[in-house]
Amino acid sequence: MKIGVLGTGMVGEAIGTKLVQLGHHVTMGSRTPDNPNAGRWAKKNGVNASQGTFRDAAAMSELVFLCTKGEATLGVIQSAGAAAFQEKVVVDVSNPLDFSHGLPPSLLICNTDSLGEQVQKALPSAKVVKTLNIVNCELMVDPAKAGEPTMLVSGNDPEAKATVVKLLKSFGWKDIVDLGDIKTARGTEMLLPLWLSLWNVIGNTHFGFKIVGRRKSE
Amino acid sequence: MKIGVLGTGMVGEAIGTKLVQLGHHVTMGSRTPDNPNAGRWAKKNGVNASQGTFRDAAAMSELVFLCTKGEATLGVIQSAGAAAFQEKVVVDVSNPLDFSHGLPPSLLICNTDSLGEQVQKALPSAKVVKTLNIVNCELMVDPAKAGEPTMLVSGNDPEAKATVVKLLKSFGWKDIVDLGDIKTARGTEMLLPLWLSLWNVIGNTHFGFKIVGRRKSE
Repeated sequence: MKIGVLGTGMVGEAIGTKLVQLGHHVTMGSRTPDNPNAGRWAKKNGVNASQGTFRDAAAMSELVFLCTKGEATLGVIQSAGAAAFQEKVVVDVSNPLDFSHGLPPSLLICNTDSLGEQVQKALPSAKVVKTLNIVNCELMVDPAKAGEPTMLVSGNDPEAKATVVKLLKSFGWKDIVDLGDIKTARGTEMLLPLWLSLWNVIGNTHFGFKIVGRRKSE
Repeated sequence: MKIGVLGTGMVGEAIGTKLVQLGHHVTMGSRTPDNPNAGRWAKKNGVNASQGTFRDAAAMSELVFLCTKGEATLGVIQSAGAAAFQEKVVVDVSNPLDFSHGLPPSLLICNTDSLGEQVQKALPSAKVVKTLNIVNCELMVDPAKAGEPTMLVSGNDPEAKATVVKLLKSFGWKDIVDLGDIKTARGTEMLLPLWLSLWNVIGNTHFGFKIVGRRKSE
């Protein structure tokens, strides 16, 4: 599949690299066409890895991962232009963390709205799926590193969710729960404060949440 | 131990009953001294179970469980009077759910504050511990019903947390994580939107969250 990965940080690199390893053609997008991080990443990952602007990476792909910092996500979409995402599956991995008041960060959006919903509003023709935002980026593409956590998926379009679930399975995820429409992204984004407390207590990021005890309705 | 349970709903009944079964002396508190739910509960649970006002239940106990609806918690504390909680361990089990805008509920307080913190502010000499608020009340006192979920504990006072952890173990909890001070209650209260989505998907309330993959810091 042709996949755009917007963001050149740890998350973009982890997801982009895994996608190339799985045989996908990946364009890493950034503000400028010659971002040095994206350049190094593309060079290291061979002929199926390339770089471009946010717009290039979205426009030339069938599916787009949003891997920028949450505070930047809506601006990145705007700079790429909604047309580049037309009808596409857009996987939002970002969290609306607000570092402006010090540590630990709070959320920029929560409770009665979510970043996932705002992305869907900004891209009405796209099929936004929120997922992977509840674990560290190394676990996103290698969940076995943290036992067997559960991955959660939110989105309005069932086909788009099926496509994303297939990708998640190829990343190694075995236990995947479809939470419902994009509004349920509120729940996974609001998991971040707990994630941050656990990180502080555990001392590393290789942990995850497993939903236990569930069975068919009685 | 002499324990007060404030609240006569499902949560108060589940916790009160378990505490009596474990040999504690429990007073169930409500707005009036003759609340019929509390009366039925006391009659059913024998000589170690009694009823009284919120103030009675708090004042005559060494440890107090707050089992009212989250929207009522601060009012209940006020009506009982802070003196009744002086220096005591106060276990806040309530969640600040806001049903005023329909279903699913949002949170009345979140992100940069929590109900746990507000309870601690209202009762500065008490040792507030937030816990159990992340599972259904049947699981609170019988976690084996949902596999082996993790229980999370937040509070400023280490001794109070140790007392509560001991109680949790007597309820059957095996995997208990101390998240840190009462501010970390933000994380467990903000888990509620996800809990509600999962309830909707799973179709019953017998599920929990297990923190997997954690190990000592590298």
